[in-house]
Parts: sequence; C-alpha cells; structure tokens
Amino acid sequence: MAGINETASLLQQSGEVAGVVAFALSGALAAVRKNMDIVGIVLLAVATALGGGIIRDLIIGNTPPNAFTEMKYPVAALCAAAVVCVWQPPSNRMTKWSLEVTDAIGLGLFAVTGTVIAHEWGMSAPGAALLGMTTCIGGGVIRDMLSGQIPTVLQPSQHLYAIPALACAATVAALLRYTDYQPWMGLACAVIAIALRLGSLRFGWHGPQPWYMRRQNADPID
Amino acid sequence: MAGINETASLLQQSGEVAGVVAFALSGALAAVRKNMDIVGIVLLAVATALGGGIIRDLIIGNTPPNAFTEMKYPVAALCAAAVVCVWQPPSNRMTKWSLEVTDAIGLGLFAVTGTVIAHEWGMSAPGAALLGMTTCIGGGVIRDMLSGQIPTVLQPSQHLYAIPALACAATVAALLRYTDYQPWMGLACAVIAIALRLGSLRFGWHGPQPWYMRRQNADPID
Amino acid sequence: MAGINETASLLQQSGEVAGVVAFALSGALAAVRKNMDIVGIVLLAVATALGGGIIRDLIIGNTPPNAFTEMKYPVAALCAAAVVCVWQPPSNRMTKWSLEVTDAIGLGLFAVTGTVIAHEWGMSAPGAALLGMTTCIGGGVIRDMLSGQIPTVLQPSQHLYAIPALACAATVAALLRYTDYQPWMGLACAVIAIALRLGSLRFGWHGPQPWYMRRQNADPID
Repeated sequence: MAGINETASLLQQSGEVAGVVAFALSGALAAVRKNMDIVGIVLLAVATALGGGIIRDLIIGNTPPNAFTEMKYPVAALCAAAVVCVWQPPSNRMTKWSLEVTDAIGLGLFAVTGTVIAHEWGMSAPGAALLGMTTCIGGGVIRDMLSGQIPTVLQPSQHLYAIPALACAATVAALLRYTDYQPWMGLACAVIAIALRLGSLRFGWHGPQPWYMRRQNADPID
Repeated sequence: MAGINETASLLQQSGEVAGVVAFALSGALAAVRKNMDIVGIVLLAVATALGGGIIRDLIIGNTPPNAFTEMKYPVAALCAAAVVCVWQPPSNRMTKWSLEVTDAIGLGLFAVTGTVIAHEWGMSAPGAALLGMTTCIGGGVIRDMLSGQIPTVLQPSQHLYAIPALACAATVAALLRYTDYQPWMGLACAVIAIALRLGSLRFGWHGPQPWYMRRQNADPID
Repeated sequence: MAGINETASLLQQSGEVAGVVAFALSGALAAVRKNMDIVGIVLLAVATALGGGIIRDLIIGNTPPNAFTEMKYPVAALCAAAVVCVWQPPSNRMTKWSLEVTDAIGLGLFAVTGTVIAHEWGMSAPGAALLGMTTCIGGGVIRDMLSGQIPTVLQPSQHLYAIPALACAATVAALLRYTDYQPWMGLACAVIAIALRLGSLRFGWHGPQPWYMRRQNADPID
C-alpha cells in the first residue's frame, strides 16, 4: 500500500463497497426481470457484485480473495439484494432503467478501484489498466451469462460499455504511474466513465462497426 | 490438517471421491439428455465433477488444484462417465431422475468437504461456509452453462437447491468452529442436505418469491 | 526452465504467440459472424486468445498470468483483431472456413505449449497432459460461451476436437517425461493435431456415440 495514505485507503475501500452495492443491485434487478425467486435474486446479486473482484484477486494472486476474507463485501451485497426483495420497482421500464444506472455506477467505480489495486500489487501500467477493465466488466459478464444472455459488453446494440471502462482504467493507470495520484482524480475518472456510459444509453451513442458491415443489416442477437 | 486425525482424513477423502463420482454421473447424464457423443459425455462429466473443486482450490490458493495432482479424482470421474457410456438409462424419465439424485448427492457431499477444506486452510467460519457453498454449487453451474442452460440453482422453478447447500455449509462451519468436530457430524449434515433437496423435488417445495411477484405470472424461463 | 535451452525457449514463445494470433483471429471472426461491432470484435478476440493461457497460469499458480505481465500477448491479439476489422472476409462461407482453420491451428499450438509449461512447473505427466488439453480447449470454450453457443467441443455434430487435443497433449507429456524432448517433436505433434482436426472437418469424422443412441436421432442442438 506504498504511497497511499490512510484517508486514501479509506476512500478506496468506500469506493469498492459502493461498487459492490451498485453491482449487487444490478444483479438483483436482472433476477427480478427473469422472474427468479428470492434465492435466485440473492445469488445473482452476490455473484455479480463479488465476481469481478474475485477474478481480480485470483489474477494478482491475492488468495483467498477479499470477498471471502472481509465480510463487509458479501454483507453489502446481501443488503442490496434484500432491498430489491422488499422494494417493488414501480414498472418494468423503471426496473430496466435502475439496472442500467446501477450497472454504470459499478462499472465506473470498479474500473478505478481495480486499477489502483493492480498497481499496488506491482503490475505495470498497461497490465493494471487491463486488469482494471477486466474487474469492472467481469461482474456484468457473470450476471449476463448466468441469466442466459450474451454479455451486454459484446452485444451489437451495446452502446458504449467497454470503451468508457478501458478509457477510465487506462487514465487511472497513467495517473498512478506518472503523477502524484490523489483519490479525487480516481473519483473524477469514475464520474466521467459513468457519465459516458449513461450518455451513450440516453443519446444512442454506438461503437463503430467494421466498414464492410452495414448497421441496418445488423439484426439484434438478443 | 491440524485437529483431524487419520481416520477423519480418510473419511474426508472418501467423501470427496464419492462427490466426484456423483457429479460426474450427473454431468454424463446431462450430456446424454443433450444427445452428445462419447467425447462430450466424458468432457461434461469431468468438468462437472472437477469444476467445483478446482474453483475451491484456486480460491484458497492451493495451486495446482488437487484435480491436477491427485489422479484419483480425474480417474474416478472417467470411470463414472464410462458407466454412463455403456449403461443405457431405461427411459428419459429415469435419466432425469438419476441426474437429479446424483446431483443432490454431490451437492451434499461437496458442501461438507468444501467447508472442511476451507476451514483447514485457515478461513473464518463465514468465509468457509461461503466457499463450501461455492464448491458444491460450482460444478452444477459449470455443467448447466456448458450445456446451454440457465443454472438450475437460479431457475425460478428450481425447488430448493442453494438453501440446503448454504444451510449444510454453514452448519458444518459452525460445528468446526465451536465444537470438537467429528466426521459423523459432517456425514449427518450431508444426508440432511441431500434429503432436503430430494424432498423439495418430490413434494414441490419452492423458495419464496418477493411479495410483489405473483407465482402464477412466473412463466418458466428455460 | 531446466533442460530447455535458449533456442527451445524461443521456439516455445514463438509457438505461443502464433497460438494467440490464431485464436484471436478465430474469436474476431466469430464476432463478425454475430454482427458485433469493433469493440465486440476486439474483446472476443482478446478473451479467446488469452483465456486459455490465463486459466493455465491460474491453475499452475503463476500469478499474475503472463497475459497481464508480458505485453506481447495482448498486443498480438489486438493486431490480429485489427486485421479482421479492416479485412472483409469475401463470403460467409470463407468466414466460417477461416474461423475453423485458425481455431485448429490455435488448438494444436496451445496443446503443445500448455503441456510444456505445465511440465516446466513440475506437474506429473498425466497432470501436464490434462492441463495442456484444458489450455487449448479453454479459449474456444470462452469464445463460444461468450457468443451464446454451446461450446464446439461438446456439440454432437462436433467432429473431432477434444480427441486430437488430448492425444497431442498426452504425447507431448510422454515425450517430455521419457525422452530427451526436442522442440521439433512438439512441432510435429502440433501439426498432426491440426491435421487431424482439419481432416475431421473435411471428411466428416465423428467421435463415437454410446451404442444405445442412434445417430440419426441426434438432432443438432445448435
């Protein structure tokens, strides 16, 4: 944890708990959309919230992963799932919207915290950026695959998902490497990534397709 | 292996081999139901039988996992797959029934052995319970996802699956922490978990749904 | 790296980079077939190319995996994805054919390099063969599951896939254990595995089905 003082460490951990809560909500809402029962809601919430971090910890060699040793992470995920079990989303559209917003928040927060942790474990800047992106995409991929969907991040109608994630992780990795990194920089990166993701949903921004594909031919696969 | 004597260790290993055989049978039967050929039957059996234990070993940091270093586990899985390749299940209903029974047996046995191993590696009681549940659910999730299904444990029509698993793992974790754990306690927990799972299939016990979902609206997703 | 001199190590690394490129091309082509955009093409290419090696490194305990520490692997995968983004496959049939050929090349190369690396890390011959097979199948399974398909290796209409992989890995493991292993032996094994795979596609060789299944009843599941 060299070079990161106590306040920064506290902020880092708050960011991670907030990311876990956001992804847990998105997992629980995805389960509600699939008409799962309470057990399914809780399991999908926990798997979505903790999956990305477990993959990150396995890759850096931090075993057992934090999710199994620090109970605040599973407890935060359980609380978020409990909220969805008692609170009825007013409508299907509201459920979808909440899912997208919580997913975007988790995306931004995990992109930053994942990259910071990878850097603290001594990875190079490109490696840390790659791992930060893996961390923040991982939970959502697990959620989508467990609920029988092609991962959002790969869908042709996907709007921007991986691009904000990678841009955010790469910026944080560069800041950590070349500047005197301050927590507010990470927070700013997370906010920009979340804004980019939500903006792409609101305004229909899409990633480019190869020149030889015509978008009107791209029928949705989901 | 502190506090566990040789007989206990032998029982632990027998329980694990029995769990591997049970899950291998369930994987092989799932492959038969999907009309796979012998290669598919063997691969799905091995992936189902060893998958949960490999995930467990990666999480506790026991690399390479036992499945790659102690040949009794892959060999047991191969033998179980071979049985399914030569023995014809009398009917489709019998295949489904055998799949469910072997899956339940593997579930109970792995919940116990996974929790015991996590405890031996020094995990706290809640962490060991979580990991025990992950171990016993993991193999079945791999089997279902490889064969193109939403995991049984998440399906709305799922009957009880994760609840017996978690109850069993949590009880074993508490016994290991607060009592002088004896192998027969683990065996009793496994038997109760298996009975709960089979009872829920026989008598149609379901997990609760959130109050705002009406079950009659819950159309099956698989 | 005992017993393997510098030329051999160079050949080993070339083999791995070539395998990464081959699998990246197969992932990118699979993404094109699913009408994904450039982000999807790049992500699926990278996940396919690096997935098998990451699983291998996690299992032998080599953390962080090479894919995150040696940038030549992600860069090679990115370059391969870029080629697919600018080069239009002349026809759908050509896309399918290129996908199958690149997948076969990756299969053969990773079966050899995965087994050699497992041996270098001190695994027994059967363990190394198992891990070599896992490495070379892993990337393709990730590609197929991410794009919403039952993995090629399990499909009843699969032609030979796992059999060449296992035969190649087992032969290399035996050569490493019982002979003075030379790189050309590995290359020969890889070529034979690739030829077997392509031959099975060309001439319709299939794996055996259990005697009680009649092939004409085996309707395709994909």
